[in-house]
Amino acid sequence: MITKVNLEKKVLHENDRLAANIRTTLTAHKIFSLNLVSSPGSGKTSLLERTLKALGNDLNIGMIAGDVQTENDANRLIRAGGKIVKPLVTEGACHLDANMINNVLNEIDLKNIELLLIENVGNLVCPSSYDLGEDMKVVLISTTEGDDKPLKYPSMFRRSSVMVINKIDLLGTSDFDITRVKQNACSINPDLKIFELSCRSGEGLEKWYKWLKNQVN
Amino acid sequence: MITKVNLEKKVLHENDRLAANIRTTLTAHKIFSLNLVSSPGSGKTSLLERTLKALGNDLNIGMIAGDVQTENDANRLIRAGGKIVKPLVTEGACHLDANMINNVLNEIDLKNIELLLIENVGNLVCPSSYDLGEDMKVVLISTTEGDDKPLKYPSMFRRSSVMVINKIDLLGTSDFDITRVKQNACSINPDLKIFELSCRSGEGLEKWYKWLKNQVN
Repeated sequence: MITKVNLEKKVLHENDRLAANIRTTLTAHKIFSLNLVSSPGSGKTSLLERTLKALGNDLNIGMIAGDVQTENDANRLIRAGGKIVKPLVTEGACHLDANMINNVLNEIDLKNIELLLIENVGNLVCPSSYDLGEDMKVVLISTTEGDDKPLKYPSMFRRSSVMVINKIDLLGTSDFDITRVKQNACSINPDLKIFELSCRSGEGLEKWYKWLKNQVN
Repeated sequence: MITKVNLEKKVLHENDRLAANIRTTLTAHKIFSLNLVSSPGSGKTSLLERTLKALGNDLNIGMIAGDVQTENDANRLIRAGGKIVKPLVTEGACHLDANMINNVLNEIDLKNIELLLIENVGNLVCPSSYDLGEDMKVVLISTTEGDDKPLKYPSMFRRSSVMVINKIDLLGTSDFDITRVKQNACSINPDLKIFELSCRSGEGLEKWYKWLKNQVN
């Protein structure tokens, strides 16, 4: 399997090179960019919908909605008011990579946006290895998934700058312990910035919006 | 990227060859085997815990608990009464493959088991490509994940024989529509056998146990 490992290294090296170029381009355009990663169903699209509705008039937001199949998420974001929303269907691939992002960015007039939100494929493993040139990775975890997930998928939590704990309206319906999930996550990455919120009830979202606006300005 | 695609094909071809050997071996030992796949947090380990407690005295059950990191799931299954439980830590890999299973099976006396339950890595994408030599794939989806998931991750639902809808005790706490998820899943794979249950409340588990016993006998 040495050949496979070497090829993977080569692919990741090429990805990192391209991601660095993307980062330079985004920085030159003063665009703040986030790469949202999580399991399927943690609420990435819901968080983006709420963010569009709350900040869409104040900020020029570009969005790239990655998915294995279907453009459902992109369509949801357009319905939520997204003006610059690009679907990115991977046709089976388990993650986004810098080359895919580069191709989509070529279709966007970067002068028109100040915040770029990239929704990755729902997968807590593979997307952690692929730098997309973003400023920060944001990992979402929902309260229905189990508080042990940071320990079981450490790479994603190590490489993220922000952890969003979603679905706090469902706390108490399972054994999920919010203190424990934060301890587990911080044992992997003590520098994580943490938000606790519910995209359904709206609780906690104001802090997220405020942080996002501060990052852009 | 032609080299990468060809190498992937070669890896999958080698995996399929080894999986066929495993299938022959398990069949020769009259072992019924399932490969449980799902997103992280859908309840694979919980379903296995309940199954062990309910059927552990009637059936000789072997379990392989796959995980990216930690042996937490294997330890949970041992605490639930599992007598033959093997942890399989992939050290970062996003799926189990036939070679990993083959190595673990070499440590198990197959004469002692009649039901083999393999818990795959929590990932709704990559494990769909890797045959482990099992009789059937069982895909779990929980009611907190969204009813569109079969459309967004079609490969997994196409290659599974059984779909378990877990956490039905939480129906009504989100927009998840159980009729719609079944329609979506059946549009991908009309032959899916479907169970609706809650590992927390116990509702619906009897049908699962009964089906499992019938498959073994």
